[in-house]
Amino acid sequence: MSTSATPPLQPFAIRFGADNATLEPQGPTLQRRMSDLEGLFADRRAWEQAVADGDPVVYTVVSSPVPETARELPQSITTIFPGDTGGEFWMTKGHQHPDPQGEIYLGLEGHGGLLLFDGERAEWLDISPGVIGYIPPGWAHRSVNVGDEPYRFLAVYPGSAGHDYGWVLTHGMGLRARRSADRVELVPFGTPAGTAGPTARSH
Amino acid sequence: MSTSATPPLQPFAIRFGADNATLEPQGPTLQRRMSDLEGLFADRRAWEQAVADGDPVVYTVVSSPVPETARELPQSITTIFPGDTGGEFWMTKGHQHPDPQGEIYLGLEGHGGLLLFDGERAEWLDISPGVIGYIPPGWAHRSVNVGDEPYRFLAVYPGSAGHDYGWVLTHGMGLRARRSADRVELVPFGTPAGTAGPTARSH
Repeated sequence: MSTSATPPLQPFAIRFGADNATLEPQGPTLQRRMSDLEGLFADRRAWEQAVADGDPVVYTVVSSPVPETARELPQSITTIFPGDTGGEFWMTKGHQHPDPQGEIYLGLEGHGGLLLFDGERAEWLDISPGVIGYIPPGWAHRSVNVGDEPYRFLAVYPGSAGHDYGWVLTHGMGLRARRSADRVELVPFGTPAGTAGPTARSH
Repeated sequence: MSTSATPPLQPFAIRFGADNATLEPQGPTLQRRMSDLEGLFADRRAWEQAVADGDPVVYTVVSSPVPETARELPQSITTIFPGDTGGEFWMTKGHQHPDPQGEIYLGLEGHGGLLLFDGERAEWLDISPGVIGYIPPGWAHRSVNVGDEPYRFLAVYPGSAGHDYGWVLTHGMGLRARRSADRVELVPFGTPAGTAGPTARSH
């Protein structure tokens, strides 16, 4: 049943820093600045302004050394910094798994949301420390920081799943999460900034 | 690429109680008493005595409702109670995945060990809160409580992996973890109780 005579990886321990987003030993690290998020915020003008105003880091992803290959189970810690652009909370690019596989996000710090979209239905899960968001196979997913401090979560996902970021640019994510007084307002994906329609939901 | 037109599970949040071993909503729960662990401790007489002396619960496994099916990513919390039988620390039965897939154990409470065996080599990882033990595909694995309080960990594993408990009864686990003064002594698997040979390692 094994695809190789020699197991590709040796057992090892990873020291896991829940409060400072570290994995030791550490694998690839990724940093997304505002300029990396073109086409994702509804308010393009606000996005352009944010890029011009220092192009801030919106989120980072620190991975363990477990490779993204079949049969392995890699992990990563994502930190989304607090903020909004044109009223839309800072968020990850979002992706779909080309090979549909389940994934979990375990909240570590701060308060966030997990937005899921299967092409027709959108779901929103509130994530805080002590909550696991379950992403079933076939659902695109994006994380959103809806608080005033960094939002951190641990992701665990099969190495064969892959990341298709283009899917979100083509299909959208069903909903957008906007700052509205002291709460989160979920508005239809296509709604221009500041014109939430009657189908908006609040969380 | 999807194997079904309708994703088999909806997104949902699982409230995760790291300090009391709860997952809410909760799926199947499993309890292993001493009598369920026949043939696993080196000292059979001590095991028989422990069964006669109240047949204590050695460990429990609480699962989330995510099913153990292909493409899903189930989770569980295992609690091993503190104790030893004939000097051998209380432990799980141990298993091999019939479908070789990686798995992670994240330490939540107490102090434990993760014993891994690929049929030739044995490895031991110390696990405490804040440590992830990585189980590569192809390695049988057993958890051991080496402390004086309950040892708890969160497991995340692909739903297709499966559990082969018979493999351990046939092949052993390479090493045994024995109580030795205030430390853990790892002795060769076949060594009868109390006769640790010169190849013993200490942790």
